[in-house]
Amino acid sequence: MFSSLAEIKQAAVEKIIPDKAAFDAATLRQTLLTKPLGSLGKLEEIAIWLASWQQNGCPKLDNVDTIIFAGNHGVAKHGVSLFPAEVTKQMVTNFKNGGAAINQLCALNGTNLKVIELDLDKPTQDFSIAPAMSEAELIEAINIGASAVSDDADLITLGEMGISNTSSASAIAMALFGGEARHWTGKGTGLDVHSIEKKAEIIRKAVGFHEDFRHDPLEILRRLGGRELAAIFGAVLAARKKHIPVLLDGFICCAAVAPLYMLNQSALSVAMAGHLSMEIGHISLLELIDKPPLLQMDMRLGEGSGAVVALSIVRAAVATHNGMATFDEANVSNIESNKNTEKVNTNRAL
Amino acid sequence: MFSSLAEIKQAAVEKIIPDKAAFDAATLRQTLLTKPLGSLGKLEEIAIWLASWQQNGCPKLDNVDTIIFAGNHGVAKHGVSLFPAEVTKQMVTNFKNGGAAINQLCALNGTNLKVIELDLDKPTQDFSIAPAMSEAELIEAINIGASAVSDDADLITLGEMGISNTSSASAIAMALFGGEARHWTGKGTGLDVHSIEKKAEIIRKAVGFHEDFRHDPLEILRRLGGRELAAIFGAVLAARKKHIPVLLDGFICCAAVAPLYMLNQSALSVAMAGHLSMEIGHISLLELIDKPPLLQMDMRLGEGSGAVVALSIVRAAVATHNGMATFDEANVSNIESNKNTEKVNTNRAL
Repeated sequence: MFSSLAEIKQAAVEKIIPDKAAFDAATLRQTLLTKPLGSLGKLEEIAIWLASWQQNGCPKLDNVDTIIFAGNHGVAKHGVSLFPAEVTKQMVTNFKNGGAAINQLCALNGTNLKVIELDLDKPTQDFSIAPAMSEAELIEAINIGASAVSDDADLITLGEMGISNTSSASAIAMALFGGEARHWTGKGTGLDVHSIEKKAEIIRKAVGFHEDFRHDPLEILRRLGGRELAAIFGAVLAARKKHIPVLLDGFICCAAVAPLYMLNQSALSVAMAGHLSMEIGHISLLELIDKPPLLQMDMRLGEGSGAVVALSIVRAAVATHNGMATFDEANVSNIESNKNTEKVNTNRAL
Repeated sequence: MFSSLAEIKQAAVEKIIPDKAAFDAATLRQTLLTKPLGSLGKLEEIAIWLASWQQNGCPKLDNVDTIIFAGNHGVAKHGVSLFPAEVTKQMVTNFKNGGAAINQLCALNGTNLKVIELDLDKPTQDFSIAPAMSEAELIEAINIGASAVSDDADLITLGEMGISNTSSASAIAMALFGGEARHWTGKGTGLDVHSIEKKAEIIRKAVGFHEDFRHDPLEILRRLGGRELAAIFGAVLAARKKHIPVLLDGFICCAAVAPLYMLNQSALSVAMAGHLSMEIGHISLLELIDKPPLLQMDMRLGEGSGAVVALSIVRAAVATHNGMATFDEANVSNIESNKNTEKVNTNRAL
């Protein structure tokens, strides 16, 4: 449990690296499997990434947690979303009753869904005229996020629910990376062009109000974030400490960890971006935090839905990596250059 | 069973359309589910496409067949692949023993793998100096492909195995769509630049040899194809007749159905392209046959592997479409404009 912002910053900058021996073992294994070298493309990269972080040449996905954090936002009073704020709570009930998209996707992809409500009856302050959270509130939300990460998870996927939280994400992105408000302001749940302009005006005003703090990523998270975004930040902090790989969801989820990237550009190597969302700012944000997305499904739902769809790709990576026969095992003729690669890699792994 | 090329052509041009009532029912259902309208992006399109072809507003994926056709090629004698021709047979044995990538992907994604060998001990003729197949051989291969499609399949995914068959695919694409041989000639299993040039020279020579038949798509399939490509062509013919949706794999699989597209530009509406392969000609080919790919995983393995990875996306589409609660069922507040859409669509469906 973190008790101060200084401790959180220290955790963010701590050097935590994936395991070299597991990386080498997984890389070698990929050269031995019955397929042309490199022919599984990103599946090979994903398997090696998982192996390195799990510190296991044959990574597992037996215990995958999907964690959704839900929060409410003071800025909702400005009508920055098509849906009223009470929908956050209603959707949490829908998650609990199994009726939402994320429930179907978790069941399909074999994950344990955890839904964590953060003071839904107490929205954050309206960030266009005040900091969204106090220091104590920020620390509490980060701790809740960190505590949600079980020691025994093989991988976690993250997501959020919070009416108006694309506004929070847009404001964070603009504050950290600059650019025009309009560049970062999208249609969220489906705003028309006029309403997007109004939303951009709120974001422009908010970033102006907090102008003096733009150099301090954690302060930006406190001032422009929401509880569910802070919890996502905390969950990634905990996951890297525990060497648990992470799949990120869309724009809001990525904005939540952008302050972590600004504190430590290697902190997000424990995570992959599940998909490119249709929300307008996501493509720039992914480029700025250096996370190419696995999928592009034109989704913009949130709830962690894109991350769980992407999990099916990660499962394909692990299934092929662990389950395929080697050339020797299957008596399939390999080509000379592959055989040489084996030798090189074997030497490197020793 | 087809007994002549004329019958095959007739089947190719037959007008077969998806079901309008199922399309309307699925489209309406998407507007009622607890999510912002359109927020599941391609998953919504996929669910509606499946519904239309299965003639069922709530489509099923209980019985999915993955069919791999294997063939050998006379052109292999020119060294157009890194691997020797006997690897085709060895990999078929690997499929049967469960050691290949496709076995792991089928197990993961719940499909029945059928591996169909087409005269592996009798390679096609070297297409650079003769037609690859006789008319009787082409018809037989198309019939084998068509017979492989079970009446009770909810969806099929297609794939192939055949050392040197990227050469066949490149030659078909060049013959049908024009352009330079080098544009269509890729590294296959991993050729270096020098070997790709040699391979392109063979393809250029072959297309020149069969120049007079480039206006006749079925003749191009006979002259430049292989048995496994003809079988894929036959499988899609049968699938559309039976209203069974199809997931196509990479460059070779798409080249096999390109002659069908040339015979009838709506014939491929029963199919989706699973992924964009790294094989150089695939991106142009997909554009020319009007099939945007679902995934881009930098794969180039064949075996139907990209199609089965894409199946996980199709499963996500069906799981959300069939399993989610509606706004009414979940007591979630909907926005007015969604409610209006419901009304419009209800009227249209009646």
